[in-house]
Parts: sequence; C-alpha cells; structure tokens
Amino acid sequence: MAHLELNPDRVLPSDPTVRPLAREIYASVKDLPIISPHGHVPAQWLADDEPFGDPTSLLLTPDHYVNRLLHASGVSLADLGVGQSTFTPEQARAAFRHLCTHWTVFRGTPVRFWFESELAEIFGIDLMPSADTADEIYDAIAAQLVTPAFRPRALYDRFGIEFIATTDDPCDDLASHAKLAADPTWTGTVAPTFRPDKYLEPAAAGWNDLIDRLGEVSGVDTGSYAGWLAAMENRRAFFKANGAVSTDHSHRDARIEPIDDAEADRLYALARAGRISAAEADTLRRNFMFAQARMAADDGLVMTLHPAVYRNHHTPTFDTYGADVGCDIPMAVEYTNALQPVLAAFGTSPGFHLVPFTIDETVYSRELAPLAGFYPSVFVGVPWWFIDAPEAMARFRGAITETAGFTRTSGFIDDTRAYLSIPARHDLSRRVDSGYLAKLVGEHRLTLDEALEAAHELVVGNPKRAFKL
Amino acid sequence: MAHLELNPDRVLPSDPTVRPLAREIYASVKDLPIISPHGHVPAQWLADDEPFGDPTSLLLTPDHYVNRLLHASGVSLADLGVGQSTFTPEQARAAFRHLCTHWTVFRGTPVRFWFESELAEIFGIDLMPSADTADEIYDAIAAQLVTPAFRPRALYDRFGIEFIATTDDPCDDLASHAKLAADPTWTGTVAPTFRPDKYLEPAAAGWNDLIDRLGEVSGVDTGSYAGWLAAMENRRAFFKANGAVSTDHSHRDARIEPIDDAEADRLYALARAGRISAAEADTLRRNFMFAQARMAADDGLVMTLHPAVYRNHHTPTFDTYGADVGCDIPMAVEYTNALQPVLAAFGTSPGFHLVPFTIDETVYSRELAPLAGFYPSVFVGVPWWFIDAPEAMARFRGAITETAGFTRTSGFIDDTRAYLSIPARHDLSRRVDSGYLAKLVGEHRLTLDEALEAAHELVVGNPKRAFKL
Amino acid sequence: MAHLELNPDRVLPSDPTVRPLAREIYASVKDLPIISPHGHVPAQWLADDEPFGDPTSLLLTPDHYVNRLLHASGVSLADLGVGQSTFTPEQARAAFRHLCTHWTVFRGTPVRFWFESELAEIFGIDLMPSADTADEIYDAIAAQLVTPAFRPRALYDRFGIEFIATTDDPCDDLASHAKLAADPTWTGTVAPTFRPDKYLEPAAAGWNDLIDRLGEVSGVDTGSYAGWLAAMENRRAFFKANGAVSTDHSHRDARIEPIDDAEADRLYALARAGRISAAEADTLRRNFMFAQARMAADDGLVMTLHPAVYRNHHTPTFDTYGADVGCDIPMAVEYTNALQPVLAAFGTSPGFHLVPFTIDETVYSRELAPLAGFYPSVFVGVPWWFIDAPEAMARFRGAITETAGFTRTSGFIDDTRAYLSIPARHDLSRRVDSGYLAKLVGEHRLTLDEALEAAHELVVGNPKRAFKL
Repeated sequence: MAHLELNPDRVLPSDPTVRPLAREIYASVKDLPIISPHGHVPAQWLADDEPFGDPTSLLLTPDHYVNRLLHASGVSLADLGVGQSTFTPEQARAAFRHLCTHWTVFRGTPVRFWFESELAEIFGIDLMPSADTADEIYDAIAAQLVTPAFRPRALYDRFGIEFIATTDDPCDDLASHAKLAADPTWTGTVAPTFRPDKYLEPAAAGWNDLIDRLGEVSGVDTGSYAGWLAAMENRRAFFKANGAVSTDHSHRDARIEPIDDAEADRLYALARAGRISAAEADTLRRNFMFAQARMAADDGLVMTLHPAVYRNHHTPTFDTYGADVGCDIPMAVEYTNALQPVLAAFGTSPGFHLVPFTIDETVYSRELAPLAGFYPSVFVGVPWWFIDAPEAMARFRGAITETAGFTRTSGFIDDTRAYLSIPARHDLSRRVDSGYLAKLVGEHRLTLDEALEAAHELVVGNPKRAFKL
Repeated sequence: MAHLELNPDRVLPSDPTVRPLAREIYASVKDLPIISPHGHVPAQWLADDEPFGDPTSLLLTPDHYVNRLLHASGVSLADLGVGQSTFTPEQARAAFRHLCTHWTVFRGTPVRFWFESELAEIFGIDLMPSADTADEIYDAIAAQLVTPAFRPRALYDRFGIEFIATTDDPCDDLASHAKLAADPTWTGTVAPTFRPDKYLEPAAAGWNDLIDRLGEVSGVDTGSYAGWLAAMENRRAFFKANGAVSTDHSHRDARIEPIDDAEADRLYALARAGRISAAEADTLRRNFMFAQARMAADDGLVMTLHPAVYRNHHTPTFDTYGADVGCDIPMAVEYTNALQPVLAAFGTSPGFHLVPFTIDETVYSRELAPLAGFYPSVFVGVPWWFIDAPEAMARFRGAITETAGFTRTSGFIDDTRAYLSIPARHDLSRRVDSGYLAKLVGEHRLTLDEALEAAHELVVGNPKRAFKL
Repeated sequence: MAHLELNPDRVLPSDPTVRPLAREIYASVKDLPIISPHGHVPAQWLADDEPFGDPTSLLLTPDHYVNRLLHASGVSLADLGVGQSTFTPEQARAAFRHLCTHWTVFRGTPVRFWFESELAEIFGIDLMPSADTADEIYDAIAAQLVTPAFRPRALYDRFGIEFIATTDDPCDDLASHAKLAADPTWTGTVAPTFRPDKYLEPAAAGWNDLIDRLGEVSGVDTGSYAGWLAAMENRRAFFKANGAVSTDHSHRDARIEPIDDAEADRLYALARAGRISAAEADTLRRNFMFAQARMAADDGLVMTLHPAVYRNHHTPTFDTYGADVGCDIPMAVEYTNALQPVLAAFGTSPGFHLVPFTIDETVYSRELAPLAGFYPSVFVGVPWWFIDAPEAMARFRGAITETAGFTRTSGFIDDTRAYLSIPARHDLSRRVDSGYLAKLVGEHRLTLDEALEAAHELVVGNPKRAFKL
C-alpha cells in the first residue's frame, strides 16, 4: 500500500533560485486566518453544529468537482450517491471505494491536492487512496467524524476561519444566520450572500411562482416592475441587516444594460403573463441586472459576477439527477462591451464594487485587467471553479499583474460546498501566489520585502478591500 | 560548415531540478512503439514498397509545414516543386538548396527539430543545413534512398511503428489496404480512416457528382436523404471491415445538430437540385454530422473533429497550386454550444467516442477539458498542425490536466504526410510530456513512480483507449 | 527611505542554467541603437529643442499608462493634471506626490520597471518613490531638466536613437519634420507616420469637416469618393516625401474589404450628406481601408494595424477629460476572416507590408503566426500597450515562434508619448527576448551562436526589414 506523505514544498516552484524564496514567502502567510467571502457551505451546519454523516455523504456525493471525473471514467453518478434519496451504508462504502479505485485519474488535478491534504492534515491518514486502502481510509474518517473535534464549529476554529459567506435565495429567512447571531457561544462570522439569479430570468420555468413568492416574503406587490424593484430592495436590505456583504450573479452572459421604465414595465407585464420571448427575456434580465447594480451603488453590497456557463449540458443527466452534478460547461465570455453601460453609470460611484469572475482565461489580460486598472470599482475575481488550480492560478497572475498590479484583485475565493476542503483550497492559493511572487523576486522585479508585503495583502488586505470587510 | 549534432537532452526542461527527472521519464518511453491513429501517409507506399524518389519530392515538395515559411521568406511554391507536373533533377536539387539556404528562418520551429532529427537519426548526416552544405546533404540523402534499408517497409520496422492509419475518401476501394492484409510477408497494421468531408458540404462545387459516385460505389440510390444515409452506412461498414477504427471530419465550425427527417429530405432535395443556399447547406451539413455521430454510436468508429480552418486563404495560390499547400489559416472555434446536441444524444453511449482537436488554444481549459472531464465519450485531441510544437504542447498539458487529468486525452497524433518525420514527431511529443511530468514531480505534485506510469499511459494506454485499438 | 538600486540581471530568467546564457545574449544587444518605427513623441520637441517643463508635465500628466492605475486607486485625473488648462507648481508637485505615495500599486507592472529605470539611469536618483521621497525626487528631476544635457536633442543622442517615428494627421503640414530636415546641425532621423483614422469613420462627429479640410490641404475636391481617393494619395505622397515609412490604423475591427466603386460612390455621397447609417459607415470604412492597402501596395508605405479597442469606455471621463486618458479597453479581435480579402488582393505584392498588432493574445498562435508564416507581406506586431510587459512579451514569443520563427515579427515598437521611457522600453524588450532565446539554448533548441544572431536580428534586422528602413 502506497504511503501518503505531503511534501512541505509541494506546488512551490522547482527552480533552485526561486524555491527558497517561495518557501519564505509562503511561510509568512500559511497560518493567516481564512477569509472566505463567497462559498456554498450551509449556515445550518454551523448553527446546529451536528456531527457530519458518513465520509461519502460529506466528502463525495455533494462534490461535483470530484464526481465529474469519476463519471468520465465510467462510474455512474447513482453509484456515487448523487440524487439517491436512500443510500445504504454499504452503498456509501462502495461509492468511496469507487473514488479510491479511480484515484489515479485525479493525477495532476487540484482535487488530488485538496483531498490528500484533507486526508493527511485533517484526518491524519497516511495511506494513498487505492482499491486496497479504500476501506481502511473510509473507516478511519468515519471514526473521527463522530467525535466532537469534527463537529462543524470545532472545525471552523481549527481551520482558522475568520469570515465565511453562504449563498442564499432572496426569499430565504436566514434563520440559521439569525440563530448564529443570537448565540453567545458563537464567535465566528457567517454572512449570507444575496443570490437572485432565478428571479432575473423571466423566461425560465417557474419564474412567475418565484416572483409571487418574492411578493409574499417581502410584503410588496410584485405585480408590476416597480413592485419587483421594491421587493428586491426590501430583500437586499434584509440580507444586509443579517450581515450580507455581497450579491452573486450567474447568467449566460455578462451584459448589464438598462432599458427605459416604460419598456421595462411592458416586458415585465409580458413576463408576468407568461408571454415573454427568449430575446425579450434577455433584455429584461440585463435590465434587472442594471437595477441590481444601481441598488448596489446605493446599499453598498458588493456585486460578484460568475457568468457564461452552459448549465446542465447533458440533458439526460439533468433529467435524472438535477442541477449541480458536474455537467456544467464553460463558454466564452465578453466583458468590455457587456459592462460598458453599467460602468459608465456606476464605475466611479463610491459605493459600487464589482468583482467579475471568469472561466474563460482569455479575458484576463484583454479585458479584466484593463477594466480593473482604470475603474476604482472593479476588482478582478481570482480563478474560479475549473481553473481554481495551480497552473491556472499562476497564469492568472501572469495575465493580470502586469496591467493591474496586485491590489486590483479580489483575494482568494474558495466558492466551495466542500467544507473540509476549505483549508486546502486557501493553502493551495497561498502556495501558488507565493511561488509567483518568488519568481518576481528571483527575476529582480520585486524585492523580497515587497513580495512578503504583497503576499500578506493578497491574503488579508485584498479580500477585505474588495468585499468591504 | 556548421556541424549538426543532436543533444540527447534537447527540449527537456533546463531547470536543474527538473532536467534529471525529465531525462529519467523520457528514457522510459523513448523506445516504445509508435502508435499513429491519424495521419496521411499513403497505404500504397507500404503496399508496393517501392523506393522513394529524390530528397525533394520526399521531404520538401509535399510538406506544407516546410513550404509555408519558405514562401513567407520569398521563395515561390513553384520553385519548391509544388504543383509542378514535371520537375527536373536540377530543379529538385535547387529546391532543396532553397530550403538549406533559408534554414535559419526555421529557428525555434518544430520543423527544425523534425528535420534535423531526420538528417541525423535516419540519414546519419552531421551537417547543419546551409547554402554551403545543401548539395552535400542532398547527395547523402539521395544515395541512401535508393538502398533497400530506406524502402517504406524497412523504415516502418526501423521506426518501430505498431499501428498507422491513413486518411481515405469514402469511395476509395482501399485496394492497398487489402493488398497489405493479403500479404503474408507484411506484419504491420495500416488502417484506413473514413474521411467524408466533401460528401457533407452540399453547397460545394462538385457535391452532386460526388454523391452520384457515392451511390455507384455503395450500390445504394443516393437520390434521397435516406439513400445518403444508407450509402454512408454501407461505406462505413466497408471501411470497418477493412480495419478502420475512426472517421475524421474537418468543417468550418464544430456544430453537430439534428433536424427532423422531413426537413432533411427537403434540404437534401434542394441540394441535389443544385438550389440549396449557403445557410441551408450549413444546416444540412450539421445534420449530416449528427447522422455520422449516430452511426458512430452504432458501429463504434471513433469520431475525430478537426474544425475551424479557413482553407485556401490566399485565393490566387489556390487557383495556381490547389489545396493543401500552406495557406490554410485557423479560426476561433466554439465547442460547448456546438457539441451540446450530439453529446446530449450520444455523450454517454457506450459505443461513442469523440476526439475534438483544435488550433484555437483558448478552448482547452475553457471547453474541452470540462467536456472530457464529464463525458466518458470525449477525449481531448492533442495539439494539432500549427501547435504540434514544444511550447504549445506544454501549454496544452498545462491547460487540460488540472481539469481532465491525463487519462482523458487522445495520445499523440502525428497527422502527417511526411513519413520520415514520424519518429521525430512522436519523439518530440514524448520529450515534452516527459518534461511536463518531470515538472510536476519537481513541484511534488506527482511522485516519480506516478510520472513514469503516466508517461507510459500517454504513449500506449491513451491512444489505445481513445481509438479502441 | 528605501534605496533604489537596479539589479543588472533584472527580468532575466532565474533558472541558474538559463541566467548566464541570458546575460551573455543581453550583453550583446543592450547597447545597440534604438530603432523606433512607431510612437507618439512630438517632432516639435526635437525641432525646437526647448527644455522640458516640470517633472509632472513631462513624466506624469500625459502618460495614461501611469495615470490609469492611480485613477483605479482613487486618485482623480484632475489631481494628476489631466485636462487642466492651468496647473500651478504646487499642484504639479502634489500630483507627483500622488504618484510616489501610490508607488506600491505598480508592483509587478512594467510602469515600475520603466520609471525606476528612468530615475536611476537618466536622472541618477537612488531613492525608491514613496510619500517620504516624493519631494526629494521631484526636486532632483526638476533641477536636471533645466540643464542642457536634458534637452530633447541631447537626450536623443544619449539614448542612442537611430530612427524615430511620430504619428501625424494627414492634414498636418509636417513643419517640424521639415525644420529638422533643413537643420544642418541635426543628424538624427524623425519620420512622420500617416494616421488617417478619423478620415475613415464617416459616421463619426466632425467627419464632414475633416473631409472638407482634407480637400483644402490636398488641393483636391473631396466632394466625391474619387476625390477622397485622390486627396489621400496626395497626402500619402506628401508624407512619403517628408520621410514617412508607414501608415497606422486603429478601428473597432480589423476588417478590410472592398466594395465596388458605384456602391462606394453611393455610400460616400450619403456620408457627405450626413445621412449614412452606422452599418453603412462600417462598410465604407472597410472599403476605405482596402483603398489604403491598395495605395500601400503602390507607394510602399508599411501598413500597421492597431484595432479592437473600446475607446473612451467611461463616458463621463471622456466628457470631462477627453480622449487618451486611460479608459480605452481592449476587445476580442478576429484577423483570419477580416484580412482575407486584402491578403488575397495584396498578400504577395512586392510593395505591400502589413503589421498587425493585437492586445487580444489569443490571435497570436491561432491567426497571426499562421498568417505571417505564409504571407511574405505580413509581419506580426510585437505586444502593444497593455501587453508591452515582460511576461506578455515572453508569451508572445512562445505563441509566435513555433509557427513563424523569429524573422516574421516586427521588431520592438515602443508606441509611446513618454520620451524619457524609450530607452527603458527597448531595454525591457531586449531583456525579455534575451531571456526567451536563452531558454531555447538551455533546452538545446538553439545554439548560443544562433541565439546571439537571432537577438541581433530582433533588434536591428527585423524592424529594418518590416519597416523598410
């Protein structure tokens, strides 16, 4: 059985000139607290602080980063527990065995880095996953998950988390957030994030029901466009009162563009009547986004954009298992034209912050760095999802820094539902950024002192500045 | 006269930490057999096993990789023998002199690596090409080409080829393949590849004649769309019976999309009547492609895509010299939307394999790695044509691996008509992949044992898995 | 106060195998003369040879490369002197203090390299810019600017400039160029560049006035399209007679496409009547560009393209401060289709040279290298504007060289209005190219002798060949 041992220098550059510099820079930031301004961990976990279930339901089934490559390798999603209302302990163990048996397919991926970090650093396991070690690893994790040290709050402390954000429906009552706020034994910070996507897609199935519900929850009549605006302002205020610092938006394209009120009224009425066309719905959605931006300039909630993903690309998988199971595929994105109207309107407004993310790396040097290099409101979002990985993160710095420097970027965003992977994800980011900075020192483009200062800023200063923490 | 000497470490990373690792990984794969699932070497060469002609007609005239940069440097294609029905020995020698005289323009290109490898390793020549050495090199090559050791079959053995595929018209009788199959003295494998491009472009000049001929050869009446389908199935079956493992497709875009049969009937009738519009022809072609995919899911022939090249960009050159002479220019490609319908239909079908290639590197991290990281049917094609080069190949691994790992890629494809360059092309790929793996070891992202295993898989396992060998 | 000291090896690769090679290659080119075939330094400076003003008006206010990141960091453009008709000495000093106070935001950007090079190498200042050092640096620069050694001509000599081009309106009388030509004490070369953009945008405000003026200046009636052509030919001839070697063009897209004369007549008449639509104006502009290309094939002026920038993206900034103040944002560009008509027409014409630049890096390997690798008329422009930076320049070589080698590129272009930054810009380019070449030597892809030769060519041979100097 292969031994699992994490090299302390992993992911740092191999160049013998740069390695010791990277080691020193990384050492200076590795133990800094974790700031996580955007993610998907449920607040309820921390509010209720119940023990986690079995290893599979915690680490495997809900994590589409892991499932997708297993699916590509011939394992069915059902066998991994996806979409299964009942999943026996034997099935859960078998699912975990699939993961370990196929462990070699993750070579070269960040999943491997994250998961092995979790095994070694959280669970103290020194076995490499394989068919031979699957059961032993499974048992070792399971045995620890039932102990108090592995409850959500204990891990929050152990992970050194200082701030974490959840992602929430505008109609959510944020009960878990309120429960935490009211709990004198809780000393952390869990902020909600306003995620109104579904309420901005007037041609999508169920939109009218959602808007009805929005009316009920906000106590505002959403029969008119003006009502929609008022209801949104109402819910944003509610989120802000419950600690929210940002709103998050993921649509097919990045376009944000106003239409005049009369046209908005007309399209809104069409949509409420269920008679809006796809093209009109796009127009209305882009106007809804402009309205969100206007509200952001007013209430100061930071606006993050995660556009241009083809959701549920494999229709049969969506029909069987639903959304978020690994078949969302990125598309090309365009920002320069798409954001012109909103930045002409709010780009220099003191209250407005916009953090655009992309999986289309071509926009980093071409569009996002130039935008963030001029607009005080724009902070380039770090690599997200598929490209939250060592080489992609290094390419990001290489593409952004020469135009926008270090200060105009968002700080690391883990964006994860995999709670136990959070330390490893932040650690990986710190390693990569340390390596990038060390390379600049090795090329005499920065002094070591400057690099140490920049590294600290990337971990602490940037997320606080971009997300107004 | 400059001496030509190949450094054994050429193209391996210079980093002193990584170099010895790369050397060890490369040493473990350098002598593995060559598997070449897609290329353009004529089967007739191996069937007839006649000696090659002069150096120019073998190495220069037919190789647009070489000609194009000479053309850009002011040498006319005619002087290189392109499109010349007669070309005297003096002209052939002069053409070769052009190549050697302009040898410096190839600095930094893979043509240089390939050609110098051929000179040194196949012909044992130790002179650097230049105006001064042109004739001596020419004579040294010519003297060897007439010897038995330089006949096609002898080179096949010497090169260590295990499998090679040709590219063939659907109406081809595959006589050379049959001759080889019937020859007890032949122990290699030369598989045909079904390349139906011209039969799928209903607005192109000559399409109706081709479809008539398809009807004759298949014995199926191609007067109707149903007939086209039956004729295609017939020819695919014929190719498969003659050893084909794949079909290859190169159109302006990657879109594959079905239309209903009535609409297909209507457009097909229009096309047969010579009255189809350009837009309708695109629609019909994308439906033809969908039909090919459906057949692939049935008969199991692997589908490879090579889209988005502007063919014959310089019209006057095409008018004078015809196609494939060096003025095809790549364009941007889109895969996420374009492949959605076909992957929704066949993406998880057990018999279906799709290998998309691209010269537009932007789709590697954005689209192809995510697609291959979910769909068990999709294997990312390695860099092709212009980007079959060391740094581009390293960028490919850097863009693909973090999302799709190593197992979801196609294995190296030489795609060449330059028979003598095949060993050098595969060697270059092995060097680059070894260097990439060594870097991961140097950064403690892989162990050396894992890298050795992955390197072997890339050369042997991946092409066998992707192409079902 | 931090000491400013330039490391002699700055920006050279850190890899210990490559560093000494890079040092040797760089040493061989660092002192070669500067050839600057495209830029924005006013000829009047050299013609009149007056002392420069204060440090801010020379180094800060007119340089949007510097201003933009200060603006993003919260400094108003007005405080930097932009668009201010009066700016007191106190304001100038305060502006410079803003720059120094925010110096850390430039970490990792080429602005830092250029500016610190200017401080140390031109002014002999050994203080790192900061709030503490701002005044001392300001005074040290101011004290030197009034001395004879810092007059434009003295600096021209000290910088080792051999050739420099300005950028001029077609109606410009080129008086300063003529003055220089007539001055026996002047031994340098300052060539005008024909920049007709505004005369090719028939829907833009003021176009008709410009065309009227073009008629007056050329003495040709511009009432008809034929008149426009004749007037353009007239002014191109005037520029050529005054030493111009090239024309420069920057439009929203790269399309160059002819229409027939009757249609051109019709659209031209519409435009002159102020009734042309936006779409028709694009058509006419692309035809105007085709006409410029035809003239270029005739008169031999090299055509440079700088397309696909969204000018004045932040409308309120444009309304207040005008153009060229830092809010131009790049867009995606397409060249393969866009240039097909013009290259089919003139791509192999002996007199025609086309140098396409891009800020969209995706076209380097996909489109520009293949184009320059076939067409003798096409030379790939080096990275421009936002990507005139070390890592971007290295990516450029990595993307271009494997397809087009070294000979098919333009040589370095500084494109700057910042006269004092010219040596640093060329120096940075030489460092990066030396590093790239050294890497090839370190990987045994070039010999050191070949790299030395290539480095010299990039600095001397390429610009002379591309720009016919």
